[in-house]
Amino acid sequence: MVAGEEVANRRVVPNEYISGFPEETDMEIVTSTMKLKVPEGSKAVLVKNLSLSCDAHMRAQMSLDGAPSAASLFEPVLESGHPNFKEGNLMWGVTGWEEYSLISMTEYLMKITNTDVPLTYYNGLLGMNGLTAYAAFFEVCSPKKGEYVYVSAAFGTVGQLVGQFAKLMGCYVAGSKEKVDLLKTKFGFDDAFNYKEEEDLASTLKRYFPEGIDIYFENVGGVMLDAVLLNMRLHGRIAVCGMISQYNRAKLEGVNNLFYLLTKRILMRGFFVLDYGHLYPQFLETTIKHLTEGKIVYVEDVVEGLEKAPSALVGIFQGHSVGRKVVLLARD
Amino acid sequence: MVAGEEVANRRVVPNEYISGFPEETDMEIVTSTMKLKVPEGSKAVLVKNLSLSCDAHMRAQMSLDGAPSAASLFEPVLESGHPNFKEGNLMWGVTGWEEYSLISMTEYLMKITNTDVPLTYYNGLLGMNGLTAYAAFFEVCSPKKGEYVYVSAAFGTVGQLVGQFAKLMGCYVAGSKEKVDLLKTKFGFDDAFNYKEEEDLASTLKRYFPEGIDIYFENVGGVMLDAVLLNMRLHGRIAVCGMISQYNRAKLEGVNNLFYLLTKRILMRGFFVLDYGHLYPQFLETTIKHLTEGKIVYVEDVVEGLEKAPSALVGIFQGHSVGRKVVLLARD
Repeated sequence: MVAGEEVANRRVVPNEYISGFPEETDMEIVTSTMKLKVPEGSKAVLVKNLSLSCDAHMRAQMSLDGAPSAASLFEPVLESGHPNFKEGNLMWGVTGWEEYSLISMTEYLMKITNTDVPLTYYNGLLGMNGLTAYAAFFEVCSPKKGEYVYVSAAFGTVGQLVGQFAKLMGCYVAGSKEKVDLLKTKFGFDDAFNYKEEEDLASTLKRYFPEGIDIYFENVGGVMLDAVLLNMRLHGRIAVCGMISQYNRAKLEGVNNLFYLLTKRILMRGFFVLDYGHLYPQFLETTIKHLTEGKIVYVEDVVEGLEKAPSALVGIFQGHSVGRKVVLLARD
Repeated sequence: MVAGEEVANRRVVPNEYISGFPEETDMEIVTSTMKLKVPEGSKAVLVKNLSLSCDAHMRAQMSLDGAPSAASLFEPVLESGHPNFKEGNLMWGVTGWEEYSLISMTEYLMKITNTDVPLTYYNGLLGMNGLTAYAAFFEVCSPKKGEYVYVSAAFGTVGQLVGQFAKLMGCYVAGSKEKVDLLKTKFGFDDAFNYKEEEDLASTLKRYFPEGIDIYFENVGGVMLDAVLLNMRLHGRIAVCGMISQYNRAKLEGVNNLFYLLTKRILMRGFFVLDYGHLYPQFLETTIKHLTEGKIVYVEDVVEGLEKAPSALVGIFQGHSVGRKVVLLARD
């Protein structure tokens, strides 16, 4: 590619009306022509996307905004109107589910300096997922050694990491998700259960947390949150990082046990990773160290080609994912 | 009274099964004999209650624990096994709805040093209600000048004070409760509405807060909370100090819009005043100063005699209260 050249740019767009669990036919790939040129006077940055993330929250975006955005890894910048980003910089940030992107919200772009790790790790572990796990766990949940941590949707990239951070802190951790054995053997959770096999979640949690839950890492919402509220301890903390059970609903589900926020003096906080960008350097240093020492385990599930993106997203909701789903677009 | 003497001690007790809105017949006054003597070796403190608070949350206690507790003003201690509290100290703290109390949880007892104000103010403004308003507003809600503050059940003692603290901070404040005019004219709220006259609370809030709500001081719960969540601004804060709409329910009401905690990155925290006792000295100094300068207005509604306590509590739920309800038991 040469700056100024015209290229075909493919991207994934949802159909106008999408409801319930996504199916492949809810999305299509459209091709437009894009001139590889930053508009005169703009501070935007023009990039080619090497790989794209594939996240459950994209489904919610499709209903809210129309188009999903992904955590992308960018190849060396093609052209930049921004003084901090030069041609040749390797970066990661948020963009559309597409091959080329013109990025004007440059405040969330991060330069990649450490390339000793697989580059696709910046789509997950060393990018937004990792920072989410790190900042939401350490900043929102203020963990203390020996506390009881429950992670829902624990097999997601964020959940796996939270569990590992919690173990490194000396907490007891249990998670819920289908892959119970892997959570215990591979990711070091103290215990795990498959919520789909449980009839009464409140009693299940009571069984796994007889002393109650100090920290709940919320990825699910709805009935799960209700059951957790019943089992929280005094002064418990809940980081709300996702509510995957609500993304496919036309009508949001009621949560009945909020009264316990009051009686148990619980802190609950909606979390969005881009509010915590200032923690990125310390997060990166800590995490790469743990990774190098083998104290953190990370698994990827890479599919190749933008045309695989819709089925990859559908797969997440069907519980097919083993490891972080990444859509690889180009190797250079 | 003389230490060691036997006295008749009357107290209010709820009937075994109480449900829904309280009625006077749900409570009765029982008399027992009490020896005015701290048990040998105990660090408890024996007091005569001069006046007792009357609070909406007592209704919830009746369902949860069986017996209500009140913010009491105590006459000079009759006998004390605790080195910090001496005979003759005037104090306030939490006790039963009764004439004499033996208090063993002495960590929440406060000595009264400033007696230039009416002593019953320690049942409300200068006691737990005031500290609740102060700590929940300043510590949990982190208010900034110019922010939009919504107070539900604004005519309660806590709500009135939060509104006044918010105005002193330079915030815009609106409240909901029946006594709309008084909130505006007497307590300085920018605006107020009667939620009982509104069909669609979400639209009502949109009308009073076209820019959205930064801080919600939660006293109500249920459908009110749902409507507020829709109208919160990004990074909003919710101090959960009460959920009066839930106290009389056999089954808790569902809240459907918690998903906005996530999308708006909202902080929500259950608040209990006794966690913030360390702020009492600074609260007391600030509040007495404001009171002396006429910047804070406080209204009391005193009934005399323990036998009036049940009807006073019933009256709160019927919206009869104008000012802080206090049950006066003795003048010395």
